[in-house]
Amino acid sequence: MNTGYTIRVITAQHGGKEDLVTFLLCVSYVILSLPLSPSLPGGYNEYGTSGVGGRAAGVNGNGPTKLVDPLEDPVPGVGTYEDFNTIDWVREKSKDRDRHREITSKSRQSTVALLHSVSDAFSGWLLMLLVGLMSGALAGGIDISAHWLTDMKEGVCLNGFWFNHEHCCWTSNETTFQERDRCPQWKSWAELITGATEGPFAYIVNYLMYIVWALLFSFLAVTLVRAFAPYACGSGIPEIKTILSGFIIRGYLGKWTLIIKTITLVLAVSSGLSLGKEGPLVHVACCCANILCHLFTKYRKNEAKRREVLSAAAAVGVSVAFGAPIGGVLFSLEEVSYYFPLKTLWRSFFAALVAAFTLRSINPFGNSRLVLFYVEFHAPWHLLELAPFILLGIFGGLWGALFIRANIAWCRRRKSTRLGHYPIIEVLVVAGFTALLSYPNSYTRMSGAELISELFNDCSLLDSSQLCGYQQVSCPSNISETGVGNTLADRPAGPGLYTALWQLALALVFKMMITVVTFGMKVPSGLFIPSMAVGAIAGRLLGVGMEQLAYYNHDWIIFKGWCSPGADCITPGLYAMVGAAACLGGVTRMTVSLVVIMFELTGGLEYIVPLMAATMTSKWVADAFGREGIYEAHIRLNGYPFLEPKEEFEHNSLAVDVMRPRRADPALAVLTQEGMTVGEVESLVESTHYSGFPVVVSQESQRLVGFVLRRDLLISIDNARQRQEGVVSASQVVFTEHAPSQAPDAPPPLRLRGILDLSPFTVTDHTPMDITVDIFRKLGLRQCLVTHNGRLLGIITKKDILKHMAQIANRDPDSILFN
Amino acid sequence: MNTGYTIRVITAQHGGKEDLVTFLLCVSYVILSLPLSPSLPGGYNEYGTSGVGGRAAGVNGNGPTKLVDPLEDPVPGVGTYEDFNTIDWVREKSKDRDRHREITSKSRQSTVALLHSVSDAFSGWLLMLLVGLMSGALAGGIDISAHWLTDMKEGVCLNGFWFNHEHCCWTSNETTFQERDRCPQWKSWAELITGATEGPFAYIVNYLMYIVWALLFSFLAVTLVRAFAPYACGSGIPEIKTILSGFIIRGYLGKWTLIIKTITLVLAVSSGLSLGKEGPLVHVACCCANILCHLFTKYRKNEAKRREVLSAAAAVGVSVAFGAPIGGVLFSLEEVSYYFPLKTLWRSFFAALVAAFTLRSINPFGNSRLVLFYVEFHAPWHLLELAPFILLGIFGGLWGALFIRANIAWCRRRKSTRLGHYPIIEVLVVAGFTALLSYPNSYTRMSGAELISELFNDCSLLDSSQLCGYQQVSCPSNISETGVGNTLADRPAGPGLYTALWQLALALVFKMMITVVTFGMKVPSGLFIPSMAVGAIAGRLLGVGMEQLAYYNHDWIIFKGWCSPGADCITPGLYAMVGAAACLGGVTRMTVSLVVIMFELTGGLEYIVPLMAATMTSKWVADAFGREGIYEAHIRLNGYPFLEPKEEFEHNSLAVDVMRPRRADPALAVLTQEGMTVGEVESLVESTHYSGFPVVVSQESQRLVGFVLRRDLLISIDNARQRQEGVVSASQVVFTEHAPSQAPDAPPPLRLRGILDLSPFTVTDHTPMDITVDIFRKLGLRQCLVTHNGRLLGIITKKDILKHMAQIANRDPDSILFN
Repeated sequence: MNTGYTIRVITAQHGGKEDLVTFLLCVSYVILSLPLSPSLPGGYNEYGTSGVGGRAAGVNGNGPTKLVDPLEDPVPGVGTYEDFNTIDWVREKSKDRDRHREITSKSRQSTVALLHSVSDAFSGWLLMLLVGLMSGALAGGIDISAHWLTDMKEGVCLNGFWFNHEHCCWTSNETTFQERDRCPQWKSWAELITGATEGPFAYIVNYLMYIVWALLFSFLAVTLVRAFAPYACGSGIPEIKTILSGFIIRGYLGKWTLIIKTITLVLAVSSGLSLGKEGPLVHVACCCANILCHLFTKYRKNEAKRREVLSAAAAVGVSVAFGAPIGGVLFSLEEVSYYFPLKTLWRSFFAALVAAFTLRSINPFGNSRLVLFYVEFHAPWHLLELAPFILLGIFGGLWGALFIRANIAWCRRRKSTRLGHYPIIEVLVVAGFTALLSYPNSYTRMSGAELISELFNDCSLLDSSQLCGYQQVSCPSNISETGVGNTLADRPAGPGLYTALWQLALALVFKMMITVVTFGMKVPSGLFIPSMAVGAIAGRLLGVGMEQLAYYNHDWIIFKGWCSPGADCITPGLYAMVGAAACLGGVTRMTVSLVVIMFELTGGLEYIVPLMAATMTSKWVADAFGREGIYEAHIRLNGYPFLEPKEEFEHNSLAVDVMRPRRADPALAVLTQEGMTVGEVESLVESTHYSGFPVVVSQESQRLVGFVLRRDLLISIDNARQRQEGVVSASQVVFTEHAPSQAPDAPPPLRLRGILDLSPFTVTDHTPMDITVDIFRKLGLRQCLVTHNGRLLGIITKKDILKHMAQIANRDPDSILFN
Repeated sequence: MNTGYTIRVITAQHGGKEDLVTFLLCVSYVILSLPLSPSLPGGYNEYGTSGVGGRAAGVNGNGPTKLVDPLEDPVPGVGTYEDFNTIDWVREKSKDRDRHREITSKSRQSTVALLHSVSDAFSGWLLMLLVGLMSGALAGGIDISAHWLTDMKEGVCLNGFWFNHEHCCWTSNETTFQERDRCPQWKSWAELITGATEGPFAYIVNYLMYIVWALLFSFLAVTLVRAFAPYACGSGIPEIKTILSGFIIRGYLGKWTLIIKTITLVLAVSSGLSLGKEGPLVHVACCCANILCHLFTKYRKNEAKRREVLSAAAAVGVSVAFGAPIGGVLFSLEEVSYYFPLKTLWRSFFAALVAAFTLRSINPFGNSRLVLFYVEFHAPWHLLELAPFILLGIFGGLWGALFIRANIAWCRRRKSTRLGHYPIIEVLVVAGFTALLSYPNSYTRMSGAELISELFNDCSLLDSSQLCGYQQVSCPSNISETGVGNTLADRPAGPGLYTALWQLALALVFKMMITVVTFGMKVPSGLFIPSMAVGAIAGRLLGVGMEQLAYYNHDWIIFKGWCSPGADCITPGLYAMVGAAACLGGVTRMTVSLVVIMFELTGGLEYIVPLMAATMTSKWVADAFGREGIYEAHIRLNGYPFLEPKEEFEHNSLAVDVMRPRRADPALAVLTQEGMTVGEVESLVESTHYSGFPVVVSQESQRLVGFVLRRDLLISIDNARQRQEGVVSASQVVFTEHAPSQAPDAPPPLRLRGILDLSPFTVTDHTPMDITVDIFRKLGLRQCLVTHNGRLLGIITKKDILKHMAQIANRDPDSILFN
């Protein structure tokens, strides 16, 4: 692994970063020293262990048993889950409360136990601190490496190949302020290979080198992902949403995923593909959190507690991606989390702050600013400008809806046709095509983040950027009249600006097309930056248009009074920002968190109203075409069992319409609390594929006693057959408290009350489905039994509900793959 | 009512505020034109109608029936609640979904219905807009009036008595920048009465006038509250928390409460009592929301939907109190709300923004700033300063815990002794005492908000405030060496500052004492400002101490390197801010929302870490002495049925331990689904006081069919006896779908399946109480039935749970008064 080394080399330039390097090395050590092969019974180290090649942790692994307290957990494996299954939130939370009660009651007995209790109480905060530090450090490393590799496509520094363009020229004394990024130490590839700095030949050499590097980076990225961690591809947010809702995907947040995702993310971003690193940073932060959970028993052993940490980690991811801790917490709350108690709110906030400050102390942008795009606008906005802002919102909503449709259609095509068999070729073709088309246009050649930064920027008089190519107006005739002499006044567009506008328009079309095919390829790819880039370009175009309209028609009634000549009345950068928010909102359907993230970028409450207007419009417009955001659409595409917490269940069906067995089906498979033999139970279990069985008083009365899970039943019977003497197929299985009397020569009964859930959730057959869905969502249930007048009638699982919902929406109910 | 007039006169000074005045008049008109006496069946206009004298809305009022759709609601009154009762969230939400489904299905039939459906969808947003506008306008009016009346205590403007001190001198041309608030038009009372401006005689006259005005204002405030709206006293936040959790207190959010609270709040703040207007503004905003809910059927008729609006209104209240919209939303989420779906998050955010902008356009502080305390610090903080910040956190926590204990003890004393019988005398004594002691000390004489503002302020060189009475150091010898010439460098304290410090120390002791007896009196009183003032004083004292320590001992190892002479290394204003946050955190146990509110005041992420450290320490320290914040303590004091959503239920009891009937009690009172006569049912209902009865198949089987509410049962039987022919005491009551066959000469049966809840919630007797409590909290249940092996065993109500929790905590279980 050379990550530690790479980061060391690069950060060494930043001076005084020894602490960071030491920290990173420690982190790498911790990661690498974690056990590579799964050694605990399944479920204990769920995500962290496997990952290489997607190998799932062995469910009945016979590893060292020292961690299994025989008193705490009599039969190893009972109470754990299989891969691609849904957890039972109620059971997990109850388990944690039991654990906590035990620690509290013990703490009164001895000082050691008291210390244990205190350390247990603070372990959550410590974990958050570690997650913040590690994610912040990793994000800093990714930023620095991506910057370096991106510059590598254009040239190399003679002082040392590990310098990026900017740092290379910082050390040079020969540069002036104006030509900061031109210095003799930095050689473009054409200069280095042929010696030519200008002319068509040098251009072609640079062009070719650009394409070669892009192909190389993307090839490396896709190969690494394919070879070591298939889960490292994509943005990861759909899967994290599903995991947070209670699903289990082993290895998805493991250390190999973390290592490979970190490396390939840098490569993918540097290759110039139309993707961002912000979404994947959420995945990276969640991997960090999951790995660090292994240091604390409380979180290692409990699926619900771990999900609280992962929710906080999602906040951390956005916090480091944009430098917006509050926005990050709201993102986690609004967009990804399922169960978000207040405690998690406090902890996420703490972790997000720690991460943001770690990132700032690494200072990857070299400006000691926390935020990715720092903007400062000078002019307020006028109420009439709400019209173009709402227009941008409509554009954002339309583009969001269109993008989701096109992208899902393309991904479905990839899944169903031969296209999906050649992921490496696909990536290479798209990367090559992107590089080929983007090099000639300076707005597509620069990275997405740079482009957005430039589009958000307000033009000052000194600005040499093409976007600020206005004509210099010496002194408008009426300045003396109005007395408003503003150095930032609206000016007529010059030829430079017109060129820039054409290039931007082309870039807009190109970005809109290429992003559709890029998102979903087998490389890490985020959607935040590409969506924002599309919106920012559209916004800037509209902004400049408005500005020119106001300049040339300042006597129109709508401009009168607030946009007289010589006034700085329209800020195209603000339009770009509003457009970016609108497009991102249309694609992801975020609202509050998006506005808060943008608010943290500008730091001014002033611009909240335009942002709010645009994101709300965008959400409403996009919702009119389909209520799913891109992440929900991808969840559905993958068939994960995700019960959307935002949408209301509108249909008026009853529990009896959804439950199994249906009227034509055979009767429900139930166990009786006594009277069945081990052989009978085994044959019943084997003849069905259900994950659990209700236990009733007797077949005749059908009065419910409890519920037993298939997995627990099988493990317990296996265990009893192996360890308990005399348990044979003819042994009675007993779920009652006291064993019934039986013939003296009968084999000893197998008592299984310990694995029986005595408090299964029940609803009556007349319960409306909207209430049932609400119960499932709020309590995080996996199944619920249906009764009629006290008799057991059937069962509803999460999958049944999702299938029912798919049916109502005229979709294929068999697209729900997992339970 | 002269509120409209007062506000008009005052706002007229602000120029171009005709829109506002028009708006306010419209609002007043809307309020006053709402029906004064309750005319609808109870529950339809729950809070808005009554209020005068706490008169509860008539439960069986026979008002106009035009609003009761006979098809929608066959028996008027069924499905409503009595006063001081808990609502059933599940039923309310289900009702709303039914309504929504109906509208949606109708909307496909005609254009009118489609328009109705669209307007229904947008009514929530419209309501939010109105709430924001109205609350923002009211808050602006309150700010302006309180400012005016406060100045009235010291003198009067000759240009017009309606000018406050600042505005009086604005219009004067004779003042210079330095002496902005000294102008000939403004006369102190001594000047006006005796003509003397200086000397002990003038001082005494002013002193006396100050006390007289304070007594007058407080007398008016307490008399108005006593006479017209007893619910207008206090901060209102404990009651709003309880209402949001699903409790009903009729008249608490009515229009009389709103009108009286607005007026008396201004009077109470102006009287100089140690109280703030920030907490009561939450109550005012909630009243606005509740009143405006009457304009929309969707919200008028549904208790759950109304509570969503009230949650948003709580956010609006804090948004206008501090000018912190995001902090307000988080306050609502963290501190007061119970059910806070994402939709409410978006809407609260919108309403909070609208309110903040309305307030800004009124511009009550005259500085076109949104925030109450605008601060700008120039120096960053050093890591070592975390030690004093944490010290402030400890102080805040200790003060918070101490304050809660002392205040609750005092309030309990007021409730149980004769003290409570003389609220007017109590208020007058406290107000007189406060005025007497606070006049001589300039830091207690100024209002709490002004004091905090001054304490937060960073001293610039030109600052003439006593707190900035540093010695002028011309040029420290080593400035040329270090090259750090800072105009804001730390300087030695001068005599002015020493005087200020003594006065501040006295003010601290005074505020700490007087706030304990002030909070809880029968006037509107908020706790935010007094708590913040205590913390700000303590923080400023510590800050100045640190500054002087660093100045005189800059060679100490801890100051070396960052606090050399001539550097501006310690900002006492920041300490004041951290102290304020710590004390407020200790009293209310807010964390994230508090930090975000403070962040919105400064606008810099820089200072989040000190704030976070202090508030977290404060919370932990205070929690060690008792886990309740001041609001929860007051809820418990009043015996409201509030199920704290933050705390985990730690005890390991089972549902069977909590349910009624207990082992020694008589059997559970149940109805059978057929076979009982109307007379039998009535005698059963009358012989018990339960709010509802389970319906079983038969007395022998005890298999559960459904649950029927006492109120619904009584109303239906009454209704049937009046309107349905042949229903007599001997009629059979039938809950089954098909009426059983009976003798031809028997009276017709009374069919009551319509009021039977066929999907009552059940848990088994073995369900751990922690899970049961979780179900109650998350689903908002009122009661839950307990079964064993399919047979009905008992019932658990919210009150039973609260009593059980009180018992575990060794408190009196009978302190829970309501169900």
